[in-house]
Amino acid sequence: MYYIFFTGTAGSGKTSLVKEFQQYLLDQQLDTAIINLDPAVEKLPYTPDFDVRDYIDAYEVMQKFGLGPNSSLIVSIDLLMSKAVDIKNEISEIEANYVLVDTPGQVELFAYRDTGRILSSLIIGDNKAVNVFLLDSFLAKEARTYVSLLLLSSAIRFRMNLPQINVLSKIDLLNKKELEELNSWSNGEELIDSLGEIDDYSFDLINSLIESLDSPPVPVSSTTDEGLDELYAEIQKILAGGEDYLTEENSPRL
Amino acid sequence: MYYIFFTGTAGSGKTSLVKEFQQYLLDQQLDTAIINLDPAVEKLPYTPDFDVRDYIDAYEVMQKFGLGPNSSLIVSIDLLMSKAVDIKNEISEIEANYVLVDTPGQVELFAYRDTGRILSSLIIGDNKAVNVFLLDSFLAKEARTYVSLLLLSSAIRFRMNLPQINVLSKIDLLNKKELEELNSWSNGEELIDSLGEIDDYSFDLINSLIESLDSPPVPVSSTTDEGLDELYAEIQKILAGGEDYLTEENSPRL
Repeated sequence: MYYIFFTGTAGSGKTSLVKEFQQYLLDQQLDTAIINLDPAVEKLPYTPDFDVRDYIDAYEVMQKFGLGPNSSLIVSIDLLMSKAVDIKNEISEIEANYVLVDTPGQVELFAYRDTGRILSSLIIGDNKAVNVFLLDSFLAKEARTYVSLLLLSSAIRFRMNLPQINVLSKIDLLNKKELEELNSWSNGEELIDSLGEIDDYSFDLINSLIESLDSPPVPVSSTTDEGLDELYAEIQKILAGGEDYLTEENSPRL
Repeated sequence: MYYIFFTGTAGSGKTSLVKEFQQYLLDQQLDTAIINLDPAVEKLPYTPDFDVRDYIDAYEVMQKFGLGPNSSLIVSIDLLMSKAVDIKNEISEIEANYVLVDTPGQVELFAYRDTGRILSSLIIGDNKAVNVFLLDSFLAKEARTYVSLLLLSSAIRFRMNLPQINVLSKIDLLNKKELEELNSWSNGEELIDSLGEIDDYSFDLINSLIESLDSPPVPVSSTTDEGLDELYAEIQKILAGGEDYLTEENSPRL
């Protein structure tokens, strides 16, 4: 059983990609299941096999504790941890080759808070897992935002400590020229050229960032299904052992 | 007139620090004003001179557009831009030496979205400004989270394009040993030692990150007022010209 997490900022298209990628796997006769971890989502275009909303309701939390919308999401996930045993039991009944995990747009859960990592460890157990991080291409087409999203991607990779694939989502919203430019930025020089004047601090940091990419972000669209073959191939490369990230040596779990 | 932005993740203590820092400035006979940019905050411990809630209500947006709490905040700020002229007019009437700007915990506005930068440029106009980024020390005492928060700090610094001071907030919640350890991490070697085994990718990135810090994060507490002198000194160094970040050459505004 393999777990595929989908993380990214609000509106980056996680839920749509989860839906399309499930269909893609089903078309290949692969068993799939979906876990929804977003306690504040209203409607889902798929039927989850596990739904965090059965355990917690972000709106109730908001009212009960008099919290703002932002804090209520964080508290919801914290509260969820008190039901860890029940959740683990329910999840362990899922049987599938691939379990797709949809996550809240509140990326800070996975980037800066323990609970995201604890929750993901709980779900994964002894299985292999990969994290697909969505860079919203509609935001990322601005070079400075592209860099910021790569920094966020690194924060999440570092904090979740899972092998990670970067994806440029929603590419159907870009024209050909925009997409070509975005793709060219996985080359550090091209990216730095597009940024205009930057200070030395940024120059070094961007070079480290680009060097740290194992492979360029995969452009995908959940509307046209472009890029799903490439995404599947990247996932296979990691999960089926092409690159063994999960050895004790190079990627210890804390 | 100088603008001091306070940014950081939800719960990092921005609002409390704004309140305490205003008092600190008032004690020195300095004129101050406060701008609140958080459309979802319930109660404020200070009286803002400009309040974004007079223009937009995140709860109304949530109901009107049927949005989740996360998206409603982002849409709120987007909607706000349509009232940019009115906002600019109201803000331009503020007269003070220092204008403190409180921001939403939804840091992605400032890290990954245009609106945060546009809004801050609108507010700043031709004045000098500095961004105080709060690393929540209660989260940051875990070494991996410390790194993630530094990555977020870089994303915000890069995206806002303002001189930035990092602050370790809420240090009254730490014991002496925890605080000493946290302070030691502004040295790259100490930090890497605390991380345990990491891969080469992380090693290089962390070194770039630490090198990019102009000065170590300033430990502060809004409960004990510890560190406010140091924070004020750092702000002076930047705003009063000790270091001229805002020249065309080393920090161009895009």
